[in-house]
Amino acid sequence: MSTAIVDRSREEYAILERWTKVKEYNVIGKSFRRVDALEKAIGKALFVGDYFIPGMLYARIVKSPVPHGILKDVNPGKAVEVKGFFGLVTAKHVPGINEVGYYIHDQPAIAEGKVRFHGEPVALALGETPGAAEEAATLAEVDVQELPAVFDPLEALEGKILVHEDKEKNIAITTKVRKGDVRKGFEESHVVIENTYKMGYQDHAYLETEGALAIPELEGMTVISVAQYPHLAQQKVARVLGISQNKVRIVQPVIGGAFGGKDDMGPIVAAQAAIAAHYAKRPVLLTYSREDSMVAHCKRDPAVIYYKTGATKDGKLKAIEVEIIFDSGAYANRGPFTLWRATAHASGPYEVPNAKVDGKLVYTNKVYQGSFRGFGNPQIQFAAERQMDELAYELGIDPVEIRLKNILRTGSLTVTNQKLEYNVGVAEALEKVAKASGWWEKRKRYPVVENGKARGLGVGIIWHGISTSRGVPDWSNAYINIARDGTVTVYTGIVEIGQGTSTGHMQIAAEALGIPINYVRIIHGTSDAPDTGATHASRGLSQGGNGVLIAATKLRNRIERAIARYFNCSELDVQIRDGWVYVKGERKLSWREAVDIAYKLGEDMAATGHFFLPKGRFDEEKGQGFAYLCYSFMALITEVEVDLDTGLTKVVKAWPAIAAGKIVNPELVKGQIYGGLVQGIGYMLMEEVKLENGKILNPNFTDYLIPTIADIPEIADPIFVEDVFPFGAFGAKGVGEMCLIPTPASIGNAIRHATGVKVNEIPFTPEKLYFALKEVRK
Amino acid sequence: MSTAIVDRSREEYAILERWTKVKEYNVIGKSFRRVDALEKAIGKALFVGDYFIPGMLYARIVKSPVPHGILKDVNPGKAVEVKGFFGLVTAKHVPGINEVGYYIHDQPAIAEGKVRFHGEPVALALGETPGAAEEAATLAEVDVQELPAVFDPLEALEGKILVHEDKEKNIAITTKVRKGDVRKGFEESHVVIENTYKMGYQDHAYLETEGALAIPELEGMTVISVAQYPHLAQQKVARVLGISQNKVRIVQPVIGGAFGGKDDMGPIVAAQAAIAAHYAKRPVLLTYSREDSMVAHCKRDPAVIYYKTGATKDGKLKAIEVEIIFDSGAYANRGPFTLWRATAHASGPYEVPNAKVDGKLVYTNKVYQGSFRGFGNPQIQFAAERQMDELAYELGIDPVEIRLKNILRTGSLTVTNQKLEYNVGVAEALEKVAKASGWWEKRKRYPVVENGKARGLGVGIIWHGISTSRGVPDWSNAYINIARDGTVTVYTGIVEIGQGTSTGHMQIAAEALGIPINYVRIIHGTSDAPDTGATHASRGLSQGGNGVLIAATKLRNRIERAIARYFNCSELDVQIRDGWVYVKGERKLSWREAVDIAYKLGEDMAATGHFFLPKGRFDEEKGQGFAYLCYSFMALITEVEVDLDTGLTKVVKAWPAIAAGKIVNPELVKGQIYGGLVQGIGYMLMEEVKLENGKILNPNFTDYLIPTIADIPEIADPIFVEDVFPFGAFGAKGVGEMCLIPTPASIGNAIRHATGVKVNEIPFTPEKLYFALKEVRK
Repeated sequence: MSTAIVDRSREEYAILERWTKVKEYNVIGKSFRRVDALEKAIGKALFVGDYFIPGMLYARIVKSPVPHGILKDVNPGKAVEVKGFFGLVTAKHVPGINEVGYYIHDQPAIAEGKVRFHGEPVALALGETPGAAEEAATLAEVDVQELPAVFDPLEALEGKILVHEDKEKNIAITTKVRKGDVRKGFEESHVVIENTYKMGYQDHAYLETEGALAIPELEGMTVISVAQYPHLAQQKVARVLGISQNKVRIVQPVIGGAFGGKDDMGPIVAAQAAIAAHYAKRPVLLTYSREDSMVAHCKRDPAVIYYKTGATKDGKLKAIEVEIIFDSGAYANRGPFTLWRATAHASGPYEVPNAKVDGKLVYTNKVYQGSFRGFGNPQIQFAAERQMDELAYELGIDPVEIRLKNILRTGSLTVTNQKLEYNVGVAEALEKVAKASGWWEKRKRYPVVENGKARGLGVGIIWHGISTSRGVPDWSNAYINIARDGTVTVYTGIVEIGQGTSTGHMQIAAEALGIPINYVRIIHGTSDAPDTGATHASRGLSQGGNGVLIAATKLRNRIERAIARYFNCSELDVQIRDGWVYVKGERKLSWREAVDIAYKLGEDMAATGHFFLPKGRFDEEKGQGFAYLCYSFMALITEVEVDLDTGLTKVVKAWPAIAAGKIVNPELVKGQIYGGLVQGIGYMLMEEVKLENGKILNPNFTDYLIPTIADIPEIADPIFVEDVFPFGAFGAKGVGEMCLIPTPASIGNAIRHATGVKVNEIPFTPEKLYFALKEVRK
Repeated sequence: MSTAIVDRSREEYAILERWTKVKEYNVIGKSFRRVDALEKAIGKALFVGDYFIPGMLYARIVKSPVPHGILKDVNPGKAVEVKGFFGLVTAKHVPGINEVGYYIHDQPAIAEGKVRFHGEPVALALGETPGAAEEAATLAEVDVQELPAVFDPLEALEGKILVHEDKEKNIAITTKVRKGDVRKGFEESHVVIENTYKMGYQDHAYLETEGALAIPELEGMTVISVAQYPHLAQQKVARVLGISQNKVRIVQPVIGGAFGGKDDMGPIVAAQAAIAAHYAKRPVLLTYSREDSMVAHCKRDPAVIYYKTGATKDGKLKAIEVEIIFDSGAYANRGPFTLWRATAHASGPYEVPNAKVDGKLVYTNKVYQGSFRGFGNPQIQFAAERQMDELAYELGIDPVEIRLKNILRTGSLTVTNQKLEYNVGVAEALEKVAKASGWWEKRKRYPVVENGKARGLGVGIIWHGISTSRGVPDWSNAYINIARDGTVTVYTGIVEIGQGTSTGHMQIAAEALGIPINYVRIIHGTSDAPDTGATHASRGLSQGGNGVLIAATKLRNRIERAIARYFNCSELDVQIRDGWVYVKGERKLSWREAVDIAYKLGEDMAATGHFFLPKGRFDEEKGQGFAYLCYSFMALITEVEVDLDTGLTKVVKAWPAIAAGKIVNPELVKGQIYGGLVQGIGYMLMEEVKLENGKILNPNFTDYLIPTIADIPEIADPIFVEDVFPFGAFGAKGVGEMCLIPTPASIGNAIRHATGVKVNEIPFTPEKLYFALKEVRK
């Protein structure tokens, strides 16, 4: 049993805890309009493609025409005849280290020596115009000697063809969990359910593709970078240029969607652009075309999951045995972490006394996997939740009921034997959403078939650890500067990627300082801010916000101290509220005047706010111990209508309930829930990357289908279970990824309910359902 | 008697004092090449005029054609016919408050209702090209009803014509010092010397004129601003735009000379450009032509000083009575502070038991005064030092000897009755420089006349308070961010204006952290840094550097703590030196590794460093008490050769000695000394702003003469008396202004020695000397 070890000598923990105990908030919990709403609505937002610098060049990637081969040379070929062609940048032009891998150092910024997937960038074509760059990229000649390739991870595990020569059997990394005695657990089980689940890629399909504008300086480089972690982009750029990190400045433009993909691609594309700018000695804007993006950017890990569940006849889980194979594609990238996340969440949000989980990350000659909303968890939660329903069917227990029998509660031990110390609201979320959806009544009435359409109701519940895992050090920070007129600027490395965190951070600063939100400005995603950690793992608001909250609290304390000195009273007599300063209950000063006094009395009106995430003990050998600081939970009930003739599934209505701690901005959280749901619908029902010999056949939105407005169901007002967490800003945990994760299982379970089809694949397209229905009818 | 009140509960004071006691420095005291040398040498430095933003407009000021009048209207007139003319921006387009005064709110950003000096900006002409803006500015019609004007401050004091209706007798402000009993002092004196001194304007004559590029944003404005205090520019821009300060971002380009002028003009021109950009809804680059600059930008205060000195026959000062009239020109601007500085330094660097000093700042219809290297002090030190020589002649005492009899020493009480608590090195500086120059021998041998040229030797010694005066709150700050690879970025509001402070700040950070200087990057002059105070009053390195030193020390302490934890030893066992970490004397880790460990152990690798300048008690009624935190001193001996036929004075050689605390970078300090000397030669011997009815007749470098390379004398290696000051970074006080201040008196006294002419005016041009020599010969 492991818990987070909180170093109580750190003042930060007390600060955070104190703020969760305030009875009434002025700014937190209110739905302020997002700060970027206006600029986006009226078209004033500057995306990277909107930047123009005199003398700048444009770049496009030149892509490998084969999935595996010896890369002999890339030369301009007929590109030299293109008007405005400037040059070709290849691996030999990398001034520093040509390596951009995240955890395993296996990935070049520009392919060198070998290519490992179809579409891998082998060069950058530079042109005076975007058209010239594009044309040159098409015309450049890639001299490559093709090698036999391997595409299927199970085949790759045989090790006949090696993607990386030094990785036997193509295994990049393995993971495991060993809890209790699985053999005994299964022996004690009355029923055992065993299934294989398969998941394909999912493309992030962000409206804006990858891009970076690199501007060379006399010493160093500034990069306008479409990334999710400026300090990581800074590191990667410094590495490929062979310069120190402080010579690289990262500025974030407005970003048109990210979903994790730009956490990985941002730094890589920034590094590529920087190499080109270094070569050209001119600013270079590298953007990926939609095809480039879909062919060459990392995607959600395809997976094969073998899942065996044992339970007693009254529905209590006794054991699970799970094997998870993640198809890494050509590079390891974030695979070690997505796989670990899947491993550590393998049980679903349930208590299970005995567990054996094994994970393998397997290289293949395909585009590599990467961060994507849910980060390895949607795959495993789908399997776990489909298992739960099959178990319910087998035992004749209602799916909600069987879940409540096993569900994680405060004090529960997780599959890694971590004790859940803080409020766990998933049971309440499930109960409430079942009630709200009319579960008990509808499950009795359904499935019904009318006009050839079958209705069913499904449930999916999930857990998701916030921020980084195990003992991986994680911190957040922020720098806040209060001007003489009392207005406040917050600098953070957390990036606004559409999720609304900037607005949330402004609320955090405003609440902590006791001022209206419009006194606060936020400069986000800048390497000028202290290293804040990444905008991923649903940590931006809760953990990124901790930095803001701590810095703001320091500043508030200093102002209170100054005011107490000024009025010769105790600091306890000073209250700051809504931009006014009260002394012993009497309104005395405006905030602006108070700040001026603080300046004049010598208080530092700038501060950093550092928060170091407490971690716990973890036993790597057994995969037991502290896994994540806290977990958010989601329960989602969906109602589907399946056209029995065509296999088309329509999600009719969805009822989401979230237990993610304090809700800082309800409207923005709703937005995240809606977005996650829709992206989950796409993942489950339509998004399918089609490959032939490792080549993506549908790298466009005509052939790769994503949900349209017509695919969005009616969505009930989300239920918020505010299971406050003491070490997230104001008790927040994290919401960004949550609703995507249970969506596939919830829909899959609803289809199962409506049709009897065991839905064990993602995506489960109409074609698949059509043939499955045929099978069922037999 | 007053001293600085040091609040010992503030840790900062201990930090600063501790650093002055280190026996040996690694980086401090060494002549590192300036960080901006290369970019300036190879032409890569970006001055504001080098910026280009697509869609930007160009602006020029439209100037008042009269020195005083009712401004009825400004209209484009024939400018409408200029190709590329965009529009005219007048006071009516100011969205916020049209006021940019510094201390007294008397000055519009763009003239409104009235004009008060010839050349005052009445509008901004905007054009698509610089040429169009220039031509339109010339053609615009200024409808103004001329009023009688007053140009002479003594006449202005009669109050017949009022420059500002609400200022009776045109007095903007008065100052005074009352120490002891002046009547008694004169009664006890054996000799009394009484003279009137007059000084004209001096133009800053920076290579780069004023400029600002304002870039409007959806909410707010970014200004590339040629200023000396980004947070002041931020305030002024916010004020004229009527928006909050955090909506304004100030970025500093490379600056081509400032000398104080851009401390005043920077924010004003930034405000003007911002008004234009707000109006045009496009970026606007406003630059002043040389003529615009010379006509419309503030200059060194012209002055009239009545000075009466009483002393005993052995040369001990008994009393001074001084009246200082500063000609403010049309606006008060910094006049209240230059006048106060002159008042508080009226005694020269001497002890005088009885003093009566009165200052008046008087409005006239001429271009206004402003900050300029020395800031009111060159005028009064000239008078005080000329008095000292006349006293020496009268008493037959050697000028150096009489100075040493009265000179300020550690423990002395100043004219404001402030006790000089810390090391006062001026006596040592004077003694050393007298010896180095061969004073004792040459003063016996000179004056000599050879080939119609007379040689003489003169001395001038001065004192100069560092940073802001009296109880005016002053602080510095810096924000430092250490990247994962251990490289360091320092953010400061102090601006690199050519003086070399950025390099000095890098040395401070490097020394404090224990790393080589090339690990440090500096981002200077940014409003993103905490408010650092201005780059003026010779405070940039010593006081601005305190912020850097404190922030860096905090970070070093955190790294030491982490290393101690890592090696399970005491923090006292950890030494960081030159980029390596030693534990109990053994080299264990590189700096980079140490930083990585600190990150992983949860240390905040970003910090602000705030320093609040200790101030003392001051009695405004008597002008008695704490005046400045510390004083730098300079002694300068010059040898001149006067052509007795033409009146042309050539400075043959100069011997400077400075007592300015610790010398952080000797080569850069030399640069400041040389520059100050040459600018002082220009001030004394050639620079003359010629006016007719308030109109400047010589607004160009053909007619306004500044020193050329041929005017620069041989300069002896400066003598550094390191009279370490505990509350300046590493003991530094301030050097930027020092050498200019004694130059006029030193030269004046040398001319007096060579020719017998009593030199009581600045500038003392060949014409003036020619006629004076004629008088003497009579």
